[in-house]
Amino acid sequence: MAIRGAMGLPVVGMVGGGQLSRMTHQAAIALGLSLRVLADATHDSAALVANGVVVGSHESLADLTAFAAGCEVVTFDHEHVPGELIAAMEAQGLNVQPGSAALLHAQDKQVMRERLAALGAPVPPFAAVGSAADVEGFAAEHGWPVVLKAATGGYDGKGVWVVGSAAEAAPVLASGVRLLAEQFVPLQRELAAVVARSPYGQAAAWPVVETVQQDGICVEVVAPAPGLAEERALEAQALALRLAAELGVVGVLAVELFETADGLLVNELAMRPHNSGHWTIEGARTSQFEQHLRAVLDYPLGATTMAAPHVVMANLLGGEGEPDLDRRLHMLFGRDPGLKVHLYGKEVRPGRKIGHVTALGDDLDETRDRARAGAHYLRTGSWL
Amino acid sequence: MAIRGAMGLPVVGMVGGGQLSRMTHQAAIALGLSLRVLADATHDSAALVANGVVVGSHESLADLTAFAAGCEVVTFDHEHVPGELIAAMEAQGLNVQPGSAALLHAQDKQVMRERLAALGAPVPPFAAVGSAADVEGFAAEHGWPVVLKAATGGYDGKGVWVVGSAAEAAPVLASGVRLLAEQFVPLQRELAAVVARSPYGQAAAWPVVETVQQDGICVEVVAPAPGLAEERALEAQALALRLAAELGVVGVLAVELFETADGLLVNELAMRPHNSGHWTIEGARTSQFEQHLRAVLDYPLGATTMAAPHVVMANLLGGEGEPDLDRRLHMLFGRDPGLKVHLYGKEVRPGRKIGHVTALGDDLDETRDRARAGAHYLRTGSWL
Repeated sequence: MAIRGAMGLPVVGMVGGGQLSRMTHQAAIALGLSLRVLADATHDSAALVANGVVVGSHESLADLTAFAAGCEVVTFDHEHVPGELIAAMEAQGLNVQPGSAALLHAQDKQVMRERLAALGAPVPPFAAVGSAADVEGFAAEHGWPVVLKAATGGYDGKGVWVVGSAAEAAPVLASGVRLLAEQFVPLQRELAAVVARSPYGQAAAWPVVETVQQDGICVEVVAPAPGLAEERALEAQALALRLAAELGVVGVLAVELFETADGLLVNELAMRPHNSGHWTIEGARTSQFEQHLRAVLDYPLGATTMAAPHVVMANLLGGEGEPDLDRRLHMLFGRDPGLKVHLYGKEVRPGRKIGHVTALGDDLDETRDRARAGAHYLRTGSWL
Repeated sequence: MAIRGAMGLPVVGMVGGGQLSRMTHQAAIALGLSLRVLADATHDSAALVANGVVVGSHESLADLTAFAAGCEVVTFDHEHVPGELIAAMEAQGLNVQPGSAALLHAQDKQVMRERLAALGAPVPPFAAVGSAADVEGFAAEHGWPVVLKAATGGYDGKGVWVVGSAAEAAPVLASGVRLLAEQFVPLQRELAAVVARSPYGQAAAWPVVETVQQDGICVEVVAPAPGLAEERALEAQALALRLAAELGVVGVLAVELFETADGLLVNELAMRPHNSGHWTIEGARTSQFEQHLRAVLDYPLGATTMAAPHVVMANLLGGEGEPDLDRRLHMLFGRDPGLKVHLYGKEVRPGRKIGHVTALGDDLDETRDRARAGAHYLRTGSWL
């Protein structure tokens, strides 16, 4: 179904009005595309800046299908649309990318783990658990502590518990959520391999990045991952490209990885533009947002070459109180005229991702220091 | 008057819904700003993609003041707002940038020529003319042909006539528009020095570019201008920075220049993001659109360093018939994955600027060839 807007170019729909939709809209503007957004509310991050905003629920099939009827393709800024609703949209002949069969692997960690294990991809030992006996049995084989993960619905460290004993596991088990136990992996650091794939089967990979987490939230992404052996970088890219093809992903696929003494392990999958790819806006020839649009529309993909030797993205998390961001922007711009600031229009709440800053440079340490200093100043109003 | 939107950041108003507003909106999204647009119609280029669109007339004081009342600062995507209306807004205490006193020099070529001559800036010989005798008198001193220019309202080659005799001048004189005669300058090429200036008085210059015109319309911009002697580049930047300060410009100032055997001459001034600065979106650390926003809000300005050794922007002009742009994008993206495409959402009409493409590279000729080929293909559907 060719559903066209201005200049005869496709109308693309994105479910979810968060910052990923907001930044995808910037890319859509350049390409002449008409982006429509299904948002929860008119004050959602993307709804503040896009024209074609529809307010509705991503858990309502009626809202989803009415929205999709006006779009040539529908894609997502989050994983929270129930799989059965996506399948129902597909059954109606609507073009949804990525499709429900692929997206399931980013929605259900148990399905993802089982499929990846079957594909021979490196994953930590895991098992579905429903009782204290299950957890103790798992620990007997793989040791304490055990990582318990909600099979669905977790994000930014939510839905993950590291438990040292059956007693610690008890309240998590009592919560009633479907759980997965995983071996606690002594990791050296976290990496991410971000790729994109089109329905035609073309795929492209950006350089592998290091992601730095604090309290389960990504605070910094360094591109390329410092000191990563070329062989391992290629292994990570090849793995992400293989998973994209095997799972039938369309759009961006972010493969979060643990680097351990024994090699790489897959941690999580995301099938949408991802925090670990925000650096590509200025840092790569094609941003993940443009690439996601190109992929879901089955356009040939763009070049993923870097725009500078080192690119560091630091997330801006909400601090305490109401910051005077206008004043802080003045001070920051005066201090670092080359830093790129992205603010999401979101209400500031402690720990909430409300923006990010990106530094590009020839020297890794200097570039990282600039990004860190910028994010820290915007958050706290004081210099590192 | 602090008028704030999301995150406590300023609400900026832009009068005019063209592609300059559209691209300014992309920059505003990153900065977390709330951009409002006063557009002629809902299908205007920027109105298609921005949320805060007000439909109204830029020639109505009531529309302008009602629009401005909701904005911390108002700026422009064109020069067509009558100066007396801008002055009336200022008299009401509204914050309009650039102000009417500065903007007049981009609206009235006679005022501009007289002021620049008084400042000792290099301009071609000129005179206001109202009769055949005036034109003949001018030609007697400066030779034929004579360039006649409408003092106000011209753009993209419109409002400029090169006449070889009094007989050729007659119909232009009969049209009743206020005219300026200028010496026909044997130019080697055209350059542009684009700078930005804030109310605080900070200013920043991008590298001087070469602009290539066909039939009075800019078709290509090459950054930096190939083979330009450093001394002359610095002279052009210094001239633009001096004019920005002397005229009290706030925002982007584009100084269009003729390079002649005897040196530089100022051709035109524009006080807004300008076609000769579109290359900065990917080609410079800070784009002219972000810089314009920073300037009118009196934020410190951003770095103007180039992102690649050579950057070439080619305008996409509408061709004959209705192009299948979707198909052409597929073909173009397949051929050149590194080319950046910008489409403005405008109805395709022959000769109309409907988009641009930008190539970045290490080799000038290759970079220029890529940009030319891309624009030519999107226009015609055939490869150069």
